[in-house]
Amino acid sequence: MSDAKLTTAPIPDEIQEALAISLRGCDELLPQDDWVKKLTRSAQTGTPLRIKLGLDPTAPDIHIGHTVVLNKMRQLQDLGHQVIFLIGDFTTLIGDPSGRDSTRPPLTAEQIQVNAETYKAQAYKVLDPSKTELRYNSEWCDQLGARGMIQLSAKYTVARMMERNDFHQRFHEGNSISLHEFIYPLLQGYDSVALKSDLELGGTDQKFNLMMGRHLQQEYGQEPQCVLTMPLLVGLDGVQKMSKSKNNYIGITEDANTMFAKVMSISDALMWDWYTLLSFMSLAEIAALKLEIEGGRNPRDAKVLLAKEITARFHSGAAAEAAEQDFVNRSRGGVPDDIPDVALPLGEGGALGIGQVLKQANLAPSTSEANRLIDGGGVRVDSSVVSDKGLKLGAGTYVVQVGKRKFARVTLA
Amino acid sequence: MSDAKLTTAPIPDEIQEALAISLRGCDELLPQDDWVKKLTRSAQTGTPLRIKLGLDPTAPDIHIGHTVVLNKMRQLQDLGHQVIFLIGDFTTLIGDPSGRDSTRPPLTAEQIQVNAETYKAQAYKVLDPSKTELRYNSEWCDQLGARGMIQLSAKYTVARMMERNDFHQRFHEGNSISLHEFIYPLLQGYDSVALKSDLELGGTDQKFNLMMGRHLQQEYGQEPQCVLTMPLLVGLDGVQKMSKSKNNYIGITEDANTMFAKVMSISDALMWDWYTLLSFMSLAEIAALKLEIEGGRNPRDAKVLLAKEITARFHSGAAAEAAEQDFVNRSRGGVPDDIPDVALPLGEGGALGIGQVLKQANLAPSTSEANRLIDGGGVRVDSSVVSDKGLKLGAGTYVVQVGKRKFARVTLA
Repeated sequence: MSDAKLTTAPIPDEIQEALAISLRGCDELLPQDDWVKKLTRSAQTGTPLRIKLGLDPTAPDIHIGHTVVLNKMRQLQDLGHQVIFLIGDFTTLIGDPSGRDSTRPPLTAEQIQVNAETYKAQAYKVLDPSKTELRYNSEWCDQLGARGMIQLSAKYTVARMMERNDFHQRFHEGNSISLHEFIYPLLQGYDSVALKSDLELGGTDQKFNLMMGRHLQQEYGQEPQCVLTMPLLVGLDGVQKMSKSKNNYIGITEDANTMFAKVMSISDALMWDWYTLLSFMSLAEIAALKLEIEGGRNPRDAKVLLAKEITARFHSGAAAEAAEQDFVNRSRGGVPDDIPDVALPLGEGGALGIGQVLKQANLAPSTSEANRLIDGGGVRVDSSVVSDKGLKLGAGTYVVQVGKRKFARVTLA
Repeated sequence: MSDAKLTTAPIPDEIQEALAISLRGCDELLPQDDWVKKLTRSAQTGTPLRIKLGLDPTAPDIHIGHTVVLNKMRQLQDLGHQVIFLIGDFTTLIGDPSGRDSTRPPLTAEQIQVNAETYKAQAYKVLDPSKTELRYNSEWCDQLGARGMIQLSAKYTVARMMERNDFHQRFHEGNSISLHEFIYPLLQGYDSVALKSDLELGGTDQKFNLMMGRHLQQEYGQEPQCVLTMPLLVGLDGVQKMSKSKNNYIGITEDANTMFAKVMSISDALMWDWYTLLSFMSLAEIAALKLEIEGGRNPRDAKVLLAKEITARFHSGAAAEAAEQDFVNRSRGGVPDDIPDVALPLGEGGALGIGQVLKQANLAPSTSEANRLIDGGGVRVDSSVVSDKGLKLGAGTYVVQVGKRKFARVTLA
């Protein structure tokens, strides 16, 4: 098969489809021609392509934003390619400096091991474990030894490293870069050499590191990998990228009811982005659904479908059904099945002010915050909105609710 | 012994003298107060200080410019301190980038081993081998492994590394710096940690690397070493630093006659610098000698003393005496004892032109060069200057001389 034939011949439907799946939702696929060649060769020879995703186990758990790349891996896995889930237990010794403005604190070997196990369990909720090659990069990085590290460092220049956006910025803003951070991209690139990777996936902030894999594979006499970057998922607020620190995230270990309700809380516009990046529904199915909504169907129906798909992935189909029912109950003003029971003593006057009730039942952190919530119309007692901050409750049992999701069954005696 | 006592008490004569020996000819001794403290503690406890000199075996032999630092080591060795001659067999894998404007080509392990043996033999012409600790830095560098290399790299920042003059200049002039070159100063500093060095010596161009030893020793919880830099020796031309590429050097493996004659060729002004840096005569003796010269004694006598001392160091006392005699013979226009005999056939005319004689006797590379030498008045036959390029020699034996040092006894038949 000559290159000339590849570029002039029409691309067969099967390859076109694989390319479309590869491109779905992606930010960049570089170089696309090379990827078509690799897909074609794979189809002709029956040899699966080797697709690499490396994750450093720097934090004990991950949110659904992290699964965008895992989903792409799964789609390529379903096409029959060999996906490699690489746990960067060695590179975590450094901490990926990508997009950060300061040096990461190092983790202990124990933390790395615990986090790696958690990552693996979470990744296997998206990937098919029986078809996934699981690797740890300490396997080849330790073998490099001190001499290998020097030989590797000799394969890149300070100037080119400094071209990386975040390094450039930190250097010129006077924020310190430790020398070992320059070694990080080299080690990530060397992983691609060790794994003979055909494609490496990552977030858009990973592009420099992914391109390093191409550079080093050529240095080591290998065909360079292609590079596929995925956009960072926008969080619940519809504005900023999903992140724990911005509290706009869905953790993949959150309970089914919370997960379902959080998906239902996003805007209709954001929903379609999430469909592209988080759903395994085909692009054709999504297009058909969108057409129905444009034709008058309630967008809420599409959101329920997405919430059920995501909830089912991380829990089960049954849990997703139950979460839907819980959500319906609550949005009808109903009370969820499973709410905490709180017993509170009545004061001397035989009644307790609503502010104290909210505070003592852990529905508000303080009485002043409780008053603020009442002013905002977010507090209900037995389904009725409370407007009077001076309300006192006498002996009895009440369902007290703050916002859509915080409930307590309070018994005053 | 408190620090306060040290700084306020008068420094004893013994320490003053050791300090003077340390400072002789040096460019910088940093920090001098710390060095006095170390010398004092050593005298009080009877514990020798550990004095480090590292040399990378990058070239197979060295010139007397390299011995300036070795001489300082020997002076400190004679004071009873422990000198460590460190062969950088590991760091040679990188090649010290100090003062260079491009990346060094790497050496093979075999070249490094051969050069290391040569260096050791040459260093032992200056140092007392029985009192010298000989080490190779592969001993602890290999043990670092890939993880140790990362931990070491984490102890310095890119910005501080970039402050090094040559790195700064190369970066801003767009000359590439390979990443492994940034690791070199760290490894040199780590050698000081491994050796628990009290003082490190080097040329003035080594200051950054020597100071790195202080930084890393503190990082690893050690008392930091002091740093002593020696100026670069000015070469035979009296202008530029001694260097093979500038052909103004005396190789320490050159024969005794050449070595002696080369020392005799330097200017009177340069001679006193060489006394400071190359002679083991005490400063008091040198001062007395200088006074004699100023009082009317021929400076040539002082130069002979220096030439004999240097020649004796690298050969023997007897060889130095012989070299002096050879030099005297030649400067009187006499013929040295040991000159090559060359037999040349006469041509058809029964005579051979002087140009051909010079060329065939290996006294000139070509007849045109021979003509140039004759024009310059540099050619003698039996002590008479040849002025006629057309001179032909008939059958017989002649002493043919080019310049001051090239001779042959030519027999034409």
